[in-house]
Amino acid sequence: MTYTLVLLRHGESEWNAKNLFTGWVDVQLSEKGVEEAKRGGTLLTNAGVLPDVVHTSLLRRAITTANLALDAADRHWIPVKRSWRLNERHYGALQGKDKKQIRDEYGDDQFMLWRRSYDVPPPDIELGSEFSQDADARYAGEPIPRAEALTHVLDRALPYWHSDIVPDLQSGKTVLVAAHGNSIRAIVKYLDDVDDATIAGINIPTGIPLRYELDEDTLKPVTRGGEYLDPDAAAAAIAAVANQGK
Amino acid sequence: MTYTLVLLRHGESEWNAKNLFTGWVDVQLSEKGVEEAKRGGTLLTNAGVLPDVVHTSLLRRAITTANLALDAADRHWIPVKRSWRLNERHYGALQGKDKKQIRDEYGDDQFMLWRRSYDVPPPDIELGSEFSQDADARYAGEPIPRAEALTHVLDRALPYWHSDIVPDLQSGKTVLVAAHGNSIRAIVKYLDDVDDATIAGINIPTGIPLRYELDEDTLKPVTRGGEYLDPDAAAAAIAAVANQGK
Repeated sequence: MTYTLVLLRHGESEWNAKNLFTGWVDVQLSEKGVEEAKRGGTLLTNAGVLPDVVHTSLLRRAITTANLALDAADRHWIPVKRSWRLNERHYGALQGKDKKQIRDEYGDDQFMLWRRSYDVPPPDIELGSEFSQDADARYAGEPIPRAEALTHVLDRALPYWHSDIVPDLQSGKTVLVAAHGNSIRAIVKYLDDVDDATIAGINIPTGIPLRYELDEDTLKPVTRGGEYLDPDAAAAAIAAVANQGK
Repeated sequence: MTYTLVLLRHGESEWNAKNLFTGWVDVQLSEKGVEEAKRGGTLLTNAGVLPDVVHTSLLRRAITTANLALDAADRHWIPVKRSWRLNERHYGALQGKDKKQIRDEYGDDQFMLWRRSYDVPPPDIELGSEFSQDADARYAGEPIPRAEALTHVLDRALPYWHSDIVPDLQSGKTVLVAAHGNSIRAIVKYLDDVDDATIAGINIPTGIPLRYELDEDTLKPVTRGGEYLDPDAAAAAIAAVANQGK
């Protein structure tokens, strides 16, 4: 027997479209992102993958994606759990900045380090600044970061994986996780035992459900890397993500 | 100290617009209903009423209304709980039927009895028929009805009120309940101690949040009837609902 996990990166956001560093800034889906989310739900239906419970971040673009995809899949009524631990990587002082401008200002090497280094975070965000979340009620009392590299996303996402997602899997539920490029990369790194260098080259396409069948004893994938429910679109989108910021 | 409860009837559905008996049939919001839901969220914001948790039925029109209203109020990230016990009244064999046609066929008295009698339900729905929910996965294992009058809605909604809504209120949370004309009437009847005859004349407008402040000891309203966040629009809509089916 296996357990079924489905990872879904939110559809394109208004800031993806504008090429801004987003992180924890709570932007809306773009019109394209809305369509991607609905299509993600249709892919679930077509594959016969029916989520029994959904876990989301606390950010609108993942929440709206889950809402739209589940509605399209006629699973809008399933239980919902949310946690900041599934949020996108906190981009620190880069939040709200133009990616191309940062690249021009700091150069290719620094830019790629901030985007893809496993353990070097961007500079901390200034508390109280426009794109900081320190006064945001949804994070009150939580040990939220001021900037993160991918390793820090793993550090805060994996406790939630073990405390909240694993019990749902072990009760036999098909679990949907609607989250972000980097929180999904963190889960993929953990599940597939991807090393720190290799994970830099792994991109997650928006709006295409990624299904993993997990061994019931080890809770590790039966097939490494899982399976995108639209493999051709996923391959094309992964190539496009890799070119982002160029 | 008081506890804050907000009741929100879903926006207009496609079947409200078509004048069909809906009950547990899981129809979409109409375009007007989408706008009503968003406006409901704006009314919450303008009144400074910020829900900390939302309870919904298992029906799309209430779920979508909650999603849209909370997004408009920037509270999309709060915890969500759902239960069939907040569903609309089950309209039995009338589900999917045209209201005017039923009125013409059975006459005014029988029509009003089915619509407004406190304890006479419509005929049971036939199991396995087009608009029956007996094979619907979301209700698996639950003691779901085949037809309900308002008294039966109270019978199944109040256990959820006590088990799930009251604890949230008692923890000091502002609680939003996104539900239906009759499940909200059931809660209002209980809270305001409305007698069985009087409740027949009480209508709940769509998309206008109804706020109750509840005494912390008795969990009963400080002001009977609560307060609509847009009293003028509520008064106009209540008059319109009373004319439905005419």
